[in-house]
Amino acid sequence: MQDEMIIGKNPVLEALQSGRSINKIIISDQLNRNTVVELQQAAKKANTIIQRVPKKRIDQLSADKHQGIVAYVTAYDYATIEEIVENARRKEELPFIIILDEIEDPHNLGAILRTADATGVHGVIIPKRRAVGLTETVAKTSAGAIEHIPVARVTNIAKTIEELKEKNIWVVGTDEEGAKDYRTLDGDTAIALVIGNEGKGISRLVKEKCDWTIHLPMKGSIPSLNASVAAGILMYEIYRERNHLGEN
Amino acid sequence: MQDEMIIGKNPVLEALQSGRSINKIIISDQLNRNTVVELQQAAKKANTIIQRVPKKRIDQLSADKHQGIVAYVTAYDYATIEEIVENARRKEELPFIIILDEIEDPHNLGAILRTADATGVHGVIIPKRRAVGLTETVAKTSAGAIEHIPVARVTNIAKTIEELKEKNIWVVGTDEEGAKDYRTLDGDTAIALVIGNEGKGISRLVKEKCDWTIHLPMKGSIPSLNASVAAGILMYEIYRERNHLGEN
Repeated sequence: MQDEMIIGKNPVLEALQSGRSINKIIISDQLNRNTVVELQQAAKKANTIIQRVPKKRIDQLSADKHQGIVAYVTAYDYATIEEIVENARRKEELPFIIILDEIEDPHNLGAILRTADATGVHGVIIPKRRAVGLTETVAKTSAGAIEHIPVARVTNIAKTIEELKEKNIWVVGTDEEGAKDYRTLDGDTAIALVIGNEGKGISRLVKEKCDWTIHLPMKGSIPSLNASVAAGILMYEIYRERNHLGEN
Repeated sequence: MQDEMIIGKNPVLEALQSGRSINKIIISDQLNRNTVVELQQAAKKANTIIQRVPKKRIDQLSADKHQGIVAYVTAYDYATIEEIVENARRKEELPFIIILDEIEDPHNLGAILRTADATGVHGVIIPKRRAVGLTETVAKTSAGAIEHIPVARVTNIAKTIEELKEKNIWVVGTDEEGAKDYRTLDGDTAIALVIGNEGKGISRLVKEKCDWTIHLPMKGSIPSLNASVAAGILMYEIYRERNHLGEN
């Protein structure tokens, strides 16, 4: 397993706080004092050492906006389906799982992980092939959520859906032509929501495995939403069904 | 005003169908016959001529995935606040406006325009400075929505909010610490929703001008959502308040 680089203040702090194994933190000698102290305190708790280098060296390491802070960590570990289901059980909640059928854009995956963290999703399932995995760009756009949401990578989404159904989890596909309006979703259900590829939507085979399909109503000229926006609206729909306004 | 390039099949077809003035369409000699016929029919209706060139030439024009199709159009026209309000009046609807306080990422602006089209937004307002405008990348990520949603560019968002209030439009800011839950939004209100910058949120001055603020509840570790995801959830909240399930 290779090292990966985490870039920017918040992603590095998140990695430190979540107890992830960090091999090295490198900061710019031009970093402001408050940030240095904040990082030092977090690094001390995590038993990690910080190295100060000239800003130029960090510029060479990363073309992105690094804010003078990078960290080397062991590449992201993937979870198993069992760990995701166990995550729900431990919290005494009905499973709430997101299945991404070939999401290709790392910004979309990052944004989806961020919303998943906000809405109480227990885990995200992605396929091994024809899809983006847990890369540095995903980590950055997830704003740290990658450290909190278990992600499982599977060989065959259709087969995984069968496994989830055996665990009494309902699998709901999202599709422009989905049979039901998304507002019919129910919070009292163990559920896995399937989100499709940016261009093609969910594949025929995967759609056939779903227990039912839903759609987002659209009153304009464009037939679909950005994948991470659609996923976000659907995750909040489950959230609001499980956390009614005024009850918490 | 300079020419801009539109890239890829769907964006070019959208531009043709929306009656936008296209100066030239260039397609690859390796494009499949069905697509050529489809483009020719759309171009004929729009009185536009198509030029076939070797695929290599298009590769030189655009580094993006061009699908063998690019078009040159006059740069995007901006609307005025009056045109946006008039757009609502003509449809006999209460104004529904989105104000973007310094959105910087073109992918976010594109995704927001796409959701705006889907949810019946009458127009989007952006500032002239420190924000992305209507660029080629925005057009592409908007999947054609840029052709349907009027976008006004203003010098001073705080001043524009004053003008909207004078037109009896309520201005609602979104903020992590917003006073009300987003589910308290009401469809029977002429409304302008303010979405903040990706990193900083909405500025203090703009927040002070808002009639009230709302927040999205979040139960995880990360304090905020991606800007286009947050905007999407809020736009669908207005949509569902205006279009109740089962009524249409």
